[in-house]
Amino acid sequence: MQTEALPLVNKFQLTEDVDSVFPKGVPWVRFYGNYKGLAINIVCPGKDPALGVDGVGTVSISLVTYASVQALKPDLIINAGTAGGFGAKGASIGDVFLSSEVAFHDRRIPIPVFDIYGVGSRKAFATPNLLKELNLKVGKLSTGDSLDMSPVDEAAIVANDATVKDMEGAAVAYVADLLKVPVIFLKAVTDIVDGDKPTPEEFLANLAAVTAALDQTATQVVDYISGKCLLEL
Amino acid sequence: MQTEALPLVNKFQLTEDVDSVFPKGVPWVRFYGNYKGLAINIVCPGKDPALGVDGVGTVSISLVTYASVQALKPDLIINAGTAGGFGAKGASIGDVFLSSEVAFHDRRIPIPVFDIYGVGSRKAFATPNLLKELNLKVGKLSTGDSLDMSPVDEAAIVANDATVKDMEGAAVAYVADLLKVPVIFLKAVTDIVDGDKPTPEEFLANLAAVTAALDQTATQVVDYISGKCLLEL
Repeated sequence: MQTEALPLVNKFQLTEDVDSVFPKGVPWVRFYGNYKGLAINIVCPGKDPALGVDGVGTVSISLVTYASVQALKPDLIINAGTAGGFGAKGASIGDVFLSSEVAFHDRRIPIPVFDIYGVGSRKAFATPNLLKELNLKVGKLSTGDSLDMSPVDEAAIVANDATVKDMEGAAVAYVADLLKVPVIFLKAVTDIVDGDKPTPEEFLANLAAVTAALDQTATQVVDYISGKCLLEL
Repeated sequence: MQTEALPLVNKFQLTEDVDSVFPKGVPWVRFYGNYKGLAINIVCPGKDPALGVDGVGTVSISLVTYASVQALKPDLIINAGTAGGFGAKGASIGDVFLSSEVAFHDRRIPIPVFDIYGVGSRKAFATPNLLKELNLKVGKLSTGDSLDMSPVDEAAIVANDATVKDMEGAAVAYVADLLKVPVIFLKAVTDIVDGDKPTPEEFLANLAAVTAALDQTATQVVDYISGKCLLEL
């Protein structure tokens, strides 16, 4: 969501790309610039043309990730966003997790091998030095197209051993894997899924404050990356 | 799935595109040629590079639809494939439906307006003459990333008033809408979702025979389209 991106756009003093690198008509938004020697692009799905809400979920993020990789040829993708966290797995509001592994929890295809395809488990690019330096929390991420969690989703999330739950990560991992671009995931906890508050209210109430925490961590990550090659991360 | 496409590739005497119009590394497959004055492209997600199974579901079909529209600039998309049918809504094994409307049933986002975005209901391009000429069954299509149907999926499918259920249609509609390309949906019933047989077994048992029915109808549709402009359909 663009709400999650704008503070970083300001922090890195990025410029909006008005002559879009994307096809005419798509709502995808790109900000770009140089920050500490790094060519940075922040790309968001933008607002749904008909409904005016931010594009969320796996379909729009897949498309914008694919089109961005094609147009911008990045060395590294950072999928930064908000997520629900599981208190029982140690997540608290405002925590920012570096996800070690991502998988889907709402793609059940009970046919041999298709079942594994559906879960689509993928590892993030390993960044042991970054992790140690910034002292980030680590947890597995589970992705689905619903903000809520049905009982079958919950069973799949448990099977995925997930600490955080979002609506995009595993789709970004799929596209990154397809196009052979390393990807890492920064997921900031806006709501406790196994807590006592309804997810939509808790998500909206914490969005602004948690976005600030996410942006702070994302800045630290980018600062750490500056001047290093991928294998040093 | 490619199983669904190959008989049509033979029927239309299409050639496989070996110097792919798609980026290196993606498994997407394209067959092309001319048939009765129409430039035809059949595009499939192909086999998952790591697992070897056909790419199914909304993420891979979104990407291949997007990339195909960018590369091929089609006048019309026909999303043809297999689907589950609801006996209570009049579907039988082997029926081929022309879907009037498509929506998602597994994208629950209970925040105002986001809820509508999640359902993502879209109308197919209207083809009243084609419908009358070929005497096709008409029904609404509901899309989700699971082959099975959970209780919450079922409630959403009922809310979508769906007669057929697939794993791609609404994602194709989303991309087609984004890029302003008319789209129609041909969905052939391989299994009765509200019947007494397990979906995976029924799906696999009927796949070959139902594909033949789908291909026959798809040929009739293409034959009807030949020599006409979009508004005559």
